[in-house]
Amino acid sequence: MNSKKLNIGLFGFGTVGSGLYDVLKRINSKNVEIKRVCVRNLSKPRNADVAFTDNADDIFNDPEINFIVELIDDADAAYTIVKRALQSGLPVVSGNKKMLAHHIEELIDLQARYNVGLLYDASACGSIPVIRNLEEYYDNDLLTSVKGILNGSSNFILSKIFNENMSYDNALKLAQDLGFAESNPSLDIDGWDSLFKLIIITVHAFGLYVAPEKIFTYGISNMGDDDIRFANEKERRFKLVAHVEKLKDNRLIMSVMPQLISRNKYIYSVEDEFNGVVIKGLFYDKQFMFGRGAGGYPTGSAVLSDITACLYDYKYEYKKRNDSQLPEYTTDHSFRVYYRYSNLSDLALLNFESISEEYKSDKYNYVIGRVSLQSLLDVNDELRKRNIFIAAYPND
Amino acid sequence: MNSKKLNIGLFGFGTVGSGLYDVLKRINSKNVEIKRVCVRNLSKPRNADVAFTDNADDIFNDPEINFIVELIDDADAAYTIVKRALQSGLPVVSGNKKMLAHHIEELIDLQARYNVGLLYDASACGSIPVIRNLEEYYDNDLLTSVKGILNGSSNFILSKIFNENMSYDNALKLAQDLGFAESNPSLDIDGWDSLFKLIIITVHAFGLYVAPEKIFTYGISNMGDDDIRFANEKERRFKLVAHVEKLKDNRLIMSVMPQLISRNKYIYSVEDEFNGVVIKGLFYDKQFMFGRGAGGYPTGSAVLSDITACLYDYKYEYKKRNDSQLPEYTTDHSFRVYYRYSNLSDLALLNFESISEEYKSDKYNYVIGRVSLQSLLDVNDELRKRNIFIAAYPND
Repeated sequence: MNSKKLNIGLFGFGTVGSGLYDVLKRINSKNVEIKRVCVRNLSKPRNADVAFTDNADDIFNDPEINFIVELIDDADAAYTIVKRALQSGLPVVSGNKKMLAHHIEELIDLQARYNVGLLYDASACGSIPVIRNLEEYYDNDLLTSVKGILNGSSNFILSKIFNENMSYDNALKLAQDLGFAESNPSLDIDGWDSLFKLIIITVHAFGLYVAPEKIFTYGISNMGDDDIRFANEKERRFKLVAHVEKLKDNRLIMSVMPQLISRNKYIYSVEDEFNGVVIKGLFYDKQFMFGRGAGGYPTGSAVLSDITACLYDYKYEYKKRNDSQLPEYTTDHSFRVYYRYSNLSDLALLNFESISEEYKSDKYNYVIGRVSLQSLLDVNDELRKRNIFIAAYPND
Repeated sequence: MNSKKLNIGLFGFGTVGSGLYDVLKRINSKNVEIKRVCVRNLSKPRNADVAFTDNADDIFNDPEINFIVELIDDADAAYTIVKRALQSGLPVVSGNKKMLAHHIEELIDLQARYNVGLLYDASACGSIPVIRNLEEYYDNDLLTSVKGILNGSSNFILSKIFNENMSYDNALKLAQDLGFAESNPSLDIDGWDSLFKLIIITVHAFGLYVAPEKIFTYGISNMGDDDIRFANEKERRFKLVAHVEKLKDNRLIMSVMPQLISRNKYIYSVEDEFNGVVIKGLFYDKQFMFGRGAGGYPTGSAVLSDITACLYDYKYEYKKRNDSQLPEYTTDHSFRVYYRYSNLSDLALLNFESISEEYKSDKYNYVIGRVSLQSLLDVNDELRKRNIFIAAYPND
C-alpha cells in the first residue's frame, strides 16, 4: 500500500475540472485532495469548497502542492504550465490534447530529463484507457492499426442526423446545449480534436510522432442533405474516423475524415457522445473498446485514474519510440472516396487516379474514385472552403 | 530500451502453446525465444523446430532458461510448475485459470516473497486485457461492477442456437470441431471456465478472493427448446454471464449463470467465440471491451503480451487487496429469475421470495420470481442434475 498523499494544484475549473472536483468529493479520498485551483476569472461564481487563485505562482510556490493537474482550454498556457511543472519535478496530469499534439516530443524529453511523469490518458479518449492499453498491452510488433471515433460531439451530431433525421444545425445546437460541443464547434466538427488525439495515440501505438500539418484532416461541417441521402441509400452512415495503420512495408498512414461505414462494422453502432476504438493486430484480429468520450464526470473520472496511477509512480515508457525499425510516415497511399461537388473546377481540384462511378444532376454531382492521401493533403484547406464533401468509401 | 533476452521454458504445446510458437516465429523476435518445451507425450508428432522434453527438470536445470510459460490443461501439474518457478526466482506466465482460481492467494504471497512476477492476463479473457486494465486503470473506488461473457465456447453455441436455429447438440459438436470447445465440454458449458475467470477478475477488481465453491455457478447444458422459445418470445437471448458487483453497503455479490439479455445491452451483440466485458463505474458509466476469447492465435498473442510485459519488469500490484475497507462477500441478495421445471418437487427445490408469473402446461411449467443467491447455492448440484433450467431475468 502506498501512503503518499497527493496535494493537487489544479489549473482550470471548466466542465472537466469541476467534474474532477465532484468525483473526488463523492469518493471522499484520503490520498488525493485539491489544494488550490488556478482560474482565469476569479469573479465567476463557483460552487466549490476550495481555495481559488488567478496567479499560477500561488500554486507553484506552495511547498505542500506535490502534483499538478492541468485542465484548461488554452493550449499555449497549458504548455507553459506543464513545462514548468516538469521542470519543477512535479508530476502532471494534462487534458489538453492540442498542446500535447504539438509539444509531445519535447515533453517526453522533459519527463526523462527531470525523471518525473506526465500522464494524459484522459485527453485521448475520454473514459476509454486507450493510451494505457497501447503502452502496456499492445506493446509488441503485432499491432497493425488503430481506428476509431475519438470525438464525442461530432459523433453525437451524426447520431442525431442518422437516427432521428435531425438537421445538421439542430443537432449541433443540441450538442452545444448539452455541453458536448465547444462554443467554437470547429475543433470538434472539423476534425481537429480527433487529429490531436490520433497524433497522441500514434506516438504510443507505433512510436512515431507526426506533426498535425502533415496529416489529412477533414470534418463533417460540409456534409449536406444529398450526402446523407447517398449514405442512407447505400445502407451506410458517415462517421468521423481517425485512423492510423501500418502497411506491409512498415510505412504508416494516418488520416482524420468522414467514412461511409457499413452496418457490419463495430464503429457503426457507436452512438451519441460515445467513443469507440478498434485495435487490430496480426494474430488477435480485432479488439474493440467503447465508452463515454465526453462530459465532465466521465472525463473527470478518467483524470482521476491518471492521478491514482501517479500515486503508484506509474509513467508511460514510450517503449516503441526506441524501436530500431520505426515505421516511416507516408501519404503515398490511395483509397476509394465518395466526392460530392458543384462544378468542373471542384472536380479538377482532386487528382483522381481512377474513377469508377459518376453521377451528375441539376442539383449536385458526385464521383466515386481513388485518390492518394498526398493529393488530398495538397488541397486540404481548399476542400474545407468549397461547397463540396468528401468521405472515404471502403470496399467492404 | 530493454536489451534483456528471454529464453523461455514452455510447458504444454496444445492449441495455445503451439499458437504462441507460431506467433513468435512470425514476428521473428530477437528478445524472446522458446528454448525448450516440456510435453507429456514426446512421441506425438509436432511440426516445430524446437527442443522437446518430457522432464520438467530439463527446463528448471537449464541455466540459460530465465522465464517460464505454463500452458497446460492439468491444474495440479500447472500449480507445481508455477510454484517451482516462483521459488526458483523465475518469472512466469500462466494460462491455467482453474489453477489460478484455486491457488491465487498463495501465488500472490510467493510473488512477494521471491520478488518475482506471475502474469496471467491471457488466462482471464483471451485477447482482452481485462486484468491489466483493472490493475492499472480502474484502480480507484469508482468501480461498481464487472459483467461479461468470459467463455467463448458456450457463447459460440448460444450464437448458433439463437442466430441460426441450430440445435444445442449440433452447435456443441460444431464448436468442438472448430477447436473452440474442450473435448470435455463441461468446463465451458457448465460455467466452470467462466467461474475461474470471474474469481481472478474479482481479485483484481475488488481486492477480494472468493473460493469457487462459495459462488453460484450454473451453465447452459440444461437449456431446452422451450426455454429458447421463451427467450425468443420476449425478444431476448440467453447469454452465459459472469457477474461481480459491489452493492451500496460495500457488500459484494458474484455469480455465473445464464441471463435473459435484452437487445439494448452491449453483451447481447457479442457473437460466436468472442468475449465481451462491461465495466461499470460511478462516474464513467459503462465501458465495454470486446475481443476474441478463444483460439490458439488470439490467446497465443495475449500470452506474448504478458511475456513482453515481463521484459519490462511489469508486475501486478494487487493494490486493492490492501484496501482498508475490502468489500464483504455475500449471497444474501435476491433477484428475478426464470425457472422452468417439470414437477412440484422441482418447484419446491427453490425457496422463492415471491412469484410474479406462473405458467403450466402438459409439456412444461415455468415461474418467474425472486430468489436469493444463497438459496440457489444451497441446491446448486441439484439444479444441475434435474430436468430444469434457471436463468436470471433482469427487469430492464
